[in-house]
Amino acid sequence: MSDKFNRFKEIVGEVSDIGHAASVLGWDQQVNMPPGGGEARGQQLATLSKIAQEKFTSDEMGQLLEDLQKDYTDPETDEGAILRVASRAYDKARRVPPEFVAEQAIAATKAFEAWVEAKGKSDFSIFQPFLEKNVELVKRYVAFFPPADHPYDVLLDDYEPGMKTAEVKEIFNNLRPKQVSLLKAISEAKQVRDDFLHKKYNEQKIWNFSEKIIAKFGYDFNRGRQDKAPHPFETTFSVNDVRITNRFEPGNPLATLFSAMHECGHALYELGVAQEYERTPLESGTSLAVHESQSRMWENLVGRSFPFWEHFFPEIKKTFPSQLDGVSLKTFYKGINKVEPSFIRVNADEATYNMHIMLRLELEIGMVDGSIAIKDLPEIWNEKMRDYLGITPPSDALGVLQDIHWSYGSIGYFSTYALGNIVSAQLWERINKDIKDLGEQIRKGQFSVLREWLRENVHKYGHKYDPQDLVQKITGSKIDSAAYVRYLTKKYSDIYGL
Amino acid sequence: MSDKFNRFKEIVGEVSDIGHAASVLGWDQQVNMPPGGGEARGQQLATLSKIAQEKFTSDEMGQLLEDLQKDYTDPETDEGAILRVASRAYDKARRVPPEFVAEQAIAATKAFEAWVEAKGKSDFSIFQPFLEKNVELVKRYVAFFPPADHPYDVLLDDYEPGMKTAEVKEIFNNLRPKQVSLLKAISEAKQVRDDFLHKKYNEQKIWNFSEKIIAKFGYDFNRGRQDKAPHPFETTFSVNDVRITNRFEPGNPLATLFSAMHECGHALYELGVAQEYERTPLESGTSLAVHESQSRMWENLVGRSFPFWEHFFPEIKKTFPSQLDGVSLKTFYKGINKVEPSFIRVNADEATYNMHIMLRLELEIGMVDGSIAIKDLPEIWNEKMRDYLGITPPSDALGVLQDIHWSYGSIGYFSTYALGNIVSAQLWERINKDIKDLGEQIRKGQFSVLREWLRENVHKYGHKYDPQDLVQKITGSKIDSAAYVRYLTKKYSDIYGL
Repeated sequence: MSDKFNRFKEIVGEVSDIGHAASVLGWDQQVNMPPGGGEARGQQLATLSKIAQEKFTSDEMGQLLEDLQKDYTDPETDEGAILRVASRAYDKARRVPPEFVAEQAIAATKAFEAWVEAKGKSDFSIFQPFLEKNVELVKRYVAFFPPADHPYDVLLDDYEPGMKTAEVKEIFNNLRPKQVSLLKAISEAKQVRDDFLHKKYNEQKIWNFSEKIIAKFGYDFNRGRQDKAPHPFETTFSVNDVRITNRFEPGNPLATLFSAMHECGHALYELGVAQEYERTPLESGTSLAVHESQSRMWENLVGRSFPFWEHFFPEIKKTFPSQLDGVSLKTFYKGINKVEPSFIRVNADEATYNMHIMLRLELEIGMVDGSIAIKDLPEIWNEKMRDYLGITPPSDALGVLQDIHWSYGSIGYFSTYALGNIVSAQLWERINKDIKDLGEQIRKGQFSVLREWLRENVHKYGHKYDPQDLVQKITGSKIDSAAYVRYLTKKYSDIYGL
Repeated sequence: MSDKFNRFKEIVGEVSDIGHAASVLGWDQQVNMPPGGGEARGQQLATLSKIAQEKFTSDEMGQLLEDLQKDYTDPETDEGAILRVASRAYDKARRVPPEFVAEQAIAATKAFEAWVEAKGKSDFSIFQPFLEKNVELVKRYVAFFPPADHPYDVLLDDYEPGMKTAEVKEIFNNLRPKQVSLLKAISEAKQVRDDFLHKKYNEQKIWNFSEKIIAKFGYDFNRGRQDKAPHPFETTFSVNDVRITNRFEPGNPLATLFSAMHECGHALYELGVAQEYERTPLESGTSLAVHESQSRMWENLVGRSFPFWEHFFPEIKKTFPSQLDGVSLKTFYKGINKVEPSFIRVNADEATYNMHIMLRLELEIGMVDGSIAIKDLPEIWNEKMRDYLGITPPSDALGVLQDIHWSYGSIGYFSTYALGNIVSAQLWERINKDIKDLGEQIRKGQFSVLREWLRENVHKYGHKYDPQDLVQKITGSKIDSAAYVRYLTKKYSDIYGL
């Protein structure tokens, strides 16, 4: 490798180190930090971010990238991929002035505080001027970039490299009518019971059970750990230290199991990236949607499947004999898959989840292209909830104010959740062709063949391929909702006898 | 404040942020990190250290310091003190080339591994060549600095700013004969029992008891926390997030209580530094000895005192009724203060501890000035143990190999432990003049007046005064062992009826 490439790798390696250090600080903030530590921690994170930014956007880096792209032209090589990803990030970072980044950070902090208050009081008008400011900044951000087909493209690209608004719209347009008619059929069918899920479960026993499951999935506790935090998340400190967090909600005790599987899915992705990508721009998953495809696969396609509970039901019944007294495997399986339109996205079941996302995407696009005024958001939100799910949020807190994302100016993120669901089903069809007895393996509590398939076909590449290219490479088609519709239809036809 | 001073503060602020970030990473490494995380964590810490070094030793910083020292000449002002401390650190950092620092780090890593093996096999010869290399590097380090009265001065100054080898020798020379004769008298007196300290104690109950004690000392769990780690230590992430670690040794269960008090003493120092020194070179304690004076005060002068146990004994007896069955307060107090010459420094009682330090200081000076050959260390160690404590280590593991310090090339550190003991007694005499009923307060479990005295006279200054100046300012004399001799003599005369 050339001296120039080595110098380039030295810089991106240091940038990676700083980023991982910041991740440790962020994790500690959520998991351990005493309240007093908050102010200084914010300052420390700002300093690390500034230093990483300065290192990465230096003129030297620009020159290196320009020179190296002439030497390494084959996009199929690791070097080619590293340079492609680094150049894109460099170009983005150079277009956005540091003063703008600082202005956005300050606005986000204020908007977050306003959002907390607004949500607490269930009063959108408190949040409205801050969201208006955030959206104004987002529009200014878009203006730093060359004109795109749609201004929302610029935002989407930050989370889903290469993805266009038109593509997402088309994917969702294909999905929407099918998901709506499936929901209608379910609503007219005989409902399932899930009362046993809302009894009192011992927190420690649930926690231990969650770790038993993810250990079987192959989460290596020598290269990670699960800690308590206000919200479940996965965070990467290196390819050999990938941690997850979880929580216990007494009102929804088994959610801890599914959150563990979800975050474990993210973690397995990061733990499976080729070790040689460490400290390069390829070291992490390729996009939020592909990441979410992994978490949703382990949570839903595996963890909410019948074969999975054929294996684990005897054990959970033994662990919680009184709570599950008189509950059969079939009843349990139906209960954890109960469909019920509800106000809160994060609590939504598989059949309704994507509807929440489509709603948000439409609002975001409207905010960005100016066709929706911020002050009208609550009303439009509630209208769409009626259209898509047939329910009307009784308050802003249960409606337009429920998500944190807009408070920190993050617009363009939501659709990746639904895309993740969609990709998970596409991969699942491919996997079931390659692993003929997958259901039988899961029934036996064997997950290693599945995990190794994912490592070999998805994880090991890290960010080498952009999301659409990766999905194409694996499944032969771009992101497309057909497999997901087949999956949902089959699953719920069985459960609801459609 | 001038623009130049603001720019200077910006840089040292960022250097402080990076240092604190590194502290979080180091803490996590000891407390949480799964084994897989080690390699990348080392790399991340190296990167942070390199960046902080680059920022702090830049030519810009040199120019700023030169210019600012002309503007802020009064050493009594905060600005004057900040510039004094920063200039000294800058000068040191600039004298030592980065390549040398890297060479030393690599040698230390290798020496540490050799030390672990040597200690495990109790075979000094395995460690010898690595220690020789470390000492050679230490000599080269000394040569980067202008000639001092003694080459060891350069090393000592890194831990105890401004302190000279001759001063430490004199302090120790005054102390040694008195401590030796006290030890002799104790050995000839009727011995005390401590069998009840070595029974089985419940770990969680001991842990809770330790937190009850330090909460009473005034350790604020909103600005800190105690976690389990292989070794007890204190670490500072900001003036409002100062954490301690502790451990439980089944063979020595009550050690957890005294370790908590010890680390709490360090933490109260850091928590008490003036908030306006945050992110400046004054933000931490002034030296290792003064730091140790705080930890030893809370551990020994408070925590191993009779009034302290007058307050806490009823509660510990209630918590551990069977273990302390038939044990009186007096017997308990004598037991926790039992004197017994032993091989291992960290387990040594107050009456023997300093002897371990004097031995090490003599060996270190000999290594640095060349009067002691590394190969002869085990023999000289054992001879001195016979001279000072009347016992002969049966193995290198229980002798010359017991401490980690030399393995990472740290020479010059040890004497600060004994100086800390000495300073703690000097402060204690002053405190007892200022707080007439201190004993009565402690008997009632009241520690706030003591803590506030320490904050007002020691803590709040952070690094504003160098150690000798601070001790002089508070006690009217420089560091001197007379108070410590008085304290030891009084305490052990009572316990052993001398």
